[in-house]
Amino acid sequence: MISRVMSAELAEHVGRRVTIAGWVHRRRRLKSVSFLVVRDRTGLTQAVAAGDLPPEESVVQVSGTVAAGAQAPGGYELVSPEVEVLAEPCVPPPLDLYRPVVQAALPTVLDHAPVALRHPLLRAGLEISAASAAGFRETLDRLGFTEIHTPKIVGSATESGANVFGLDYFGRPAYLAQSPQFYKQAMAGVFERVYEVGPVFRAEPHDTARHLAQYTSLDAELGFVRDHRDVMAVLREVVAGMLASVRRRAPAALGLLDVTLPEVPAEIPAIHFTEAQRLTSSGEPDLSPAQERWLSEWARREHGCEFLFVTGYPMSKRPFYTHPDPARPGYSNGFDLLFRGMELVTGGQRLHRHEDYVRALAERGEGTAAYEGYLQAFRYGMPPHGGFAMGLERWTARLTGAANVRQTTAFPRDLHRLSP
Amino acid sequence: MISRVMSAELAEHVGRRVTIAGWVHRRRRLKSVSFLVVRDRTGLTQAVAAGDLPPEESVVQVSGTVAAGAQAPGGYELVSPEVEVLAEPCVPPPLDLYRPVVQAALPTVLDHAPVALRHPLLRAGLEISAASAAGFRETLDRLGFTEIHTPKIVGSATESGANVFGLDYFGRPAYLAQSPQFYKQAMAGVFERVYEVGPVFRAEPHDTARHLAQYTSLDAELGFVRDHRDVMAVLREVVAGMLASVRRRAPAALGLLDVTLPEVPAEIPAIHFTEAQRLTSSGEPDLSPAQERWLSEWARREHGCEFLFVTGYPMSKRPFYTHPDPARPGYSNGFDLLFRGMELVTGGQRLHRHEDYVRALAERGEGTAAYEGYLQAFRYGMPPHGGFAMGLERWTARLTGAANVRQTTAFPRDLHRLSP
Repeated sequence: MISRVMSAELAEHVGRRVTIAGWVHRRRRLKSVSFLVVRDRTGLTQAVAAGDLPPEESVVQVSGTVAAGAQAPGGYELVSPEVEVLAEPCVPPPLDLYRPVVQAALPTVLDHAPVALRHPLLRAGLEISAASAAGFRETLDRLGFTEIHTPKIVGSATESGANVFGLDYFGRPAYLAQSPQFYKQAMAGVFERVYEVGPVFRAEPHDTARHLAQYTSLDAELGFVRDHRDVMAVLREVVAGMLASVRRRAPAALGLLDVTLPEVPAEIPAIHFTEAQRLTSSGEPDLSPAQERWLSEWARREHGCEFLFVTGYPMSKRPFYTHPDPARPGYSNGFDLLFRGMELVTGGQRLHRHEDYVRALAERGEGTAAYEGYLQAFRYGMPPHGGFAMGLERWTARLTGAANVRQTTAFPRDLHRLSP
Repeated sequence: MISRVMSAELAEHVGRRVTIAGWVHRRRRLKSVSFLVVRDRTGLTQAVAAGDLPPEESVVQVSGTVAAGAQAPGGYELVSPEVEVLAEPCVPPPLDLYRPVVQAALPTVLDHAPVALRHPLLRAGLEISAASAAGFRETLDRLGFTEIHTPKIVGSATESGANVFGLDYFGRPAYLAQSPQFYKQAMAGVFERVYEVGPVFRAEPHDTARHLAQYTSLDAELGFVRDHRDVMAVLREVVAGMLASVRRRAPAALGLLDVTLPEVPAEIPAIHFTEAQRLTSSGEPDLSPAQERWLSEWARREHGCEFLFVTGYPMSKRPFYTHPDPARPGYSNGFDLLFRGMELVTGGQRLHRHEDYVRALAERGEGTAAYEGYLQAFRYGMPPHGGFAMGLERWTARLTGAANVRQTTAFPRDLHRLSP
């Protein structure tokens, strides 16, 4: 590697001559002195310079003597620097990366993602996303789950039918998977406990702040549950583990974005759908975004908690593989987890007996032909099981307060956007 | 959760009455006694039973008293058992899961993956795969890399043109990404060091034992390298970390499959392409599979090493973004890593100056228009960088000795196979 110390390590080298390397974050010429601020993956270093300075986003190596500097970004700076340019930019960046706040509209940011994401605030969101995914896996590894990788190209558009991308698969019609649902259930029959972190695809025709055509789904599925409450207990562990991972792995990003992480109580409050209906004076079989916001606010007020489980959604509003509540068969053993005003996770107990699948499909007016591969698992004995799925981008948006989910992924795909 | 102890924990409960849960792996009726072998995610438990026993793949809970049993799978068995059936299979499995060896042809296994993968040997391969991916991430996390998630739907089929799946993206033509190459390079401009574990897609028209239409690519990219040798040094750490992870996380799977893990020397031997040509008496600008096998054998013989780097492939055989060897511009700073007779990893140093990209594309008779999004990163200053990509399935196949890469992924996709 290019021999260098990182910005965050300067304190260990006071009085010594060192070399740093990174991008010119900012050059400032004052009357009597100039400053060069260099950005590397650990932070910023200021060099007290003289003479001509390379422009912003030049890639440089700077050798200098480390000195305490009260005004310097990390408390230390380089004096008597020698600057070597490794690569020059062709044009100035489309936004000033050194300004504390991103002063560009979202389309400008997205059109210029390869350079815009170098802005410390935009980068920070992606660091929190990466730390979250690491916490998801870490928690489930600890609980005996096995990671799986499932097909993203599938032969039938069965799970919802709508909003699916079609493709030509060696001359046959095929589709991009909208979720790993069927596969993770089958693999719960192999490993009992499985998870997947991977892309899912929705041909979402709406241009909203909360939908993407591709997002990263955090999926888990586990067998030998009594009912959905065991799944909710694992999800509680996962959410706590994700937050702990963010706290540990991305403290600087949290500070930059001024994020206050939520507390996760030992048991997240839960209310039944019928109670949620009563509280929101709703007669509908589903909750609107406004009602989700109201319930989330209610949970904060009543339970001092930013999370709220809503359980027992009507069977009519859940997919055919949902397990009914044995005590109230019109309602399901399905749940949503609301977080800061929005549904963050959907999950539940699934059917596990083959005959129940055949019946559930028949009740919805569907045959079993399109589901043969899926139903195989149930033909050979499956334990009571359930699981959940969380969108990584939506999680990151809720955590960082990003108004638009497009700000929480590097290169979003939507109705209009297919590049960069 | 259903209250139970796991098979692997029986030794801690000798003399006590416990409940286990899992699948009926085998029932055996002898003259004077019957045995029920139950499979859970940690192993097998034998119960000494009487009376009618549920058939194979029934999901059961078995309560019994733990006793030492020299003939029992883990050295302990359950006596005086009570068996409760949680779910019954509809039909017997298409292959005997209890036989030590898989006695079914590959198409049968693949057609019945949801049940066939329950066979301990098939399951073991996937456990090794999961442990390997965990080791990949763990090593790179330790080295300061950041995980990224990049688009799998792209607007132009630029990287190779051929073997790409086309799809309809809201009425516009789009393609499934063949690699995250362009995106990981751009993100090396943001985080310096990035990795991605995700699916890539190749419309591979050949029906061979080493090609899949979807596979899991382990991708890494890092900035501030001197040249490709720094990339090779990181790859060496990654391979060692993957093996250590397999050793730690999947010892039972290694035992079942009788896998001998390779040693990774502090420095993996490397030879230049021209030397590889000389050794194999080849005049071709690339190495054939037979030559790769020969070289791999040679490395084992000469260096006592199952890995071999071949460096300096001719520029004409590498993609346009490959950095040439400054001392011999017809040859590249690109490398392959051979492992047990096959190319396992491809990598190298990339171009990092915008003008070099413009020139490289022009030399190949291409304009820059189709590459605008990609070239953005280089317009704004990029450090010298490089990276590599490894197919998780191919790695697992080499490690476990699987003859066909389809045996190392749960639900393979190929020219003919789109389900389950």
